[in-house]
Amino acid sequence: MPTFTDDSPIRNGVDTATLFATLDAVKGNNEIAKFKFRASNKWISGTHSQGTIHGFYGAMQEMEHNSVHIFDADHPAVLVGTDTGPTPTEYVLHALAACLTAGIANIAAARKINLTEVESVVEGDIDLLGILGLGEGVRNGFQGIKVSFKLKGDDADKLRQVVEQSRARSAVYDIVTNGVPVEIEVEAG
Amino acid sequence: MPTFTDDSPIRNGVDTATLFATLDAVKGNNEIAKFKFRASNKWISGTHSQGTIHGFYGAMQEMEHNSVHIFDADHPAVLVGTDTGPTPTEYVLHALAACLTAGIANIAAARKINLTEVESVVEGDIDLLGILGLGEGVRNGFQGIKVSFKLKGDDADKLRQVVEQSRARSAVYDIVTNGVPVEIEVEAG
Repeated sequence: MPTFTDDSPIRNGVDTATLFATLDAVKGNNEIAKFKFRASNKWISGTHSQGTIHGFYGAMQEMEHNSVHIFDADHPAVLVGTDTGPTPTEYVLHALAACLTAGIANIAAARKINLTEVESVVEGDIDLLGILGLGEGVRNGFQGIKVSFKLKGDDADKLRQVVEQSRARSAVYDIVTNGVPVEIEVEAG
Repeated sequence: MPTFTDDSPIRNGVDTATLFATLDAVKGNNEIAKFKFRASNKWISGTHSQGTIHGFYGAMQEMEHNSVHIFDADHPAVLVGTDTGPTPTEYVLHALAACLTAGIANIAAARKINLTEVESVVEGDIDLLGILGLGEGVRNGFQGIKVSFKLKGDDADKLRQVVEQSRARSAVYDIVTNGVPVEIEVEAG
């Protein structure tokens, strides 16, 4: 739970002392900041697949999350799937909300702004004529995404500035708005 | 499980009869193809938030997945989080693998190619100097993503062509490589 003592290093559940120490450590050795994140995936049947997230590289060593995270993805029945999990595109929307929210908590804490509530809804419009190959010039992905935040805390204006700074420093916002080069390698047999 | 009878409409777990009927229905009425996917998110504490995926709009009506899907996201301890879930960026990698894999199963089925195995590992390189605000010109998101597929099935060359067609028709590949306009709305109080 967030702590509201003004001189506490813990604010919004963020240990700001450790946060600032981490920043200093990275300033001292930029190599610490080079991370490689990873997900593996195994096809089950039809549009159903299962992803696993566990290991990653960071701070100059191979590391692991506390738990092995397994996530099913599928298409709903209306899209000829078995609906055993969300669609892949919905995971992207979830990632965007979670990244902006983590940034909001960190930045608010660093600025000594107390948060009591951060909620969001992320919606993406997609015209499936694209992926179905039925629409000339219709893109495969989302045509646009809208994120609606509702925040409660110390000061409305400062909270809006925190959201703006989180946007400016969000990994997933950057990925989703600016794109990333993707290389695909295939071993088939 | 995949069915290998050559005249069966079910191949790779994909009901191709329903798939082609769906394509025909969309050709008859393009409105059916307009979807709106959605994720909501609630901040818990620090970098930990919880996302929910349930309802979506499609085929001219509001719909719901069979289950309410809840996913925790967090930063690992090395990034000053409590590691209650994967990082937001890892969910993006998972989404990319799942989308390409669903496409592979559908396209292979449509082309009467039997699959026995589809596995992938997706890796994204990120230099956290970007999100930490310590690197002039270092982007916040992944600098590059590499997807490694291992497929088994009927014919190696045809399987490689299926992967290429899946890439060409993947919603998440398009989102991640080409970017999407994102609008952020804030209600603060």
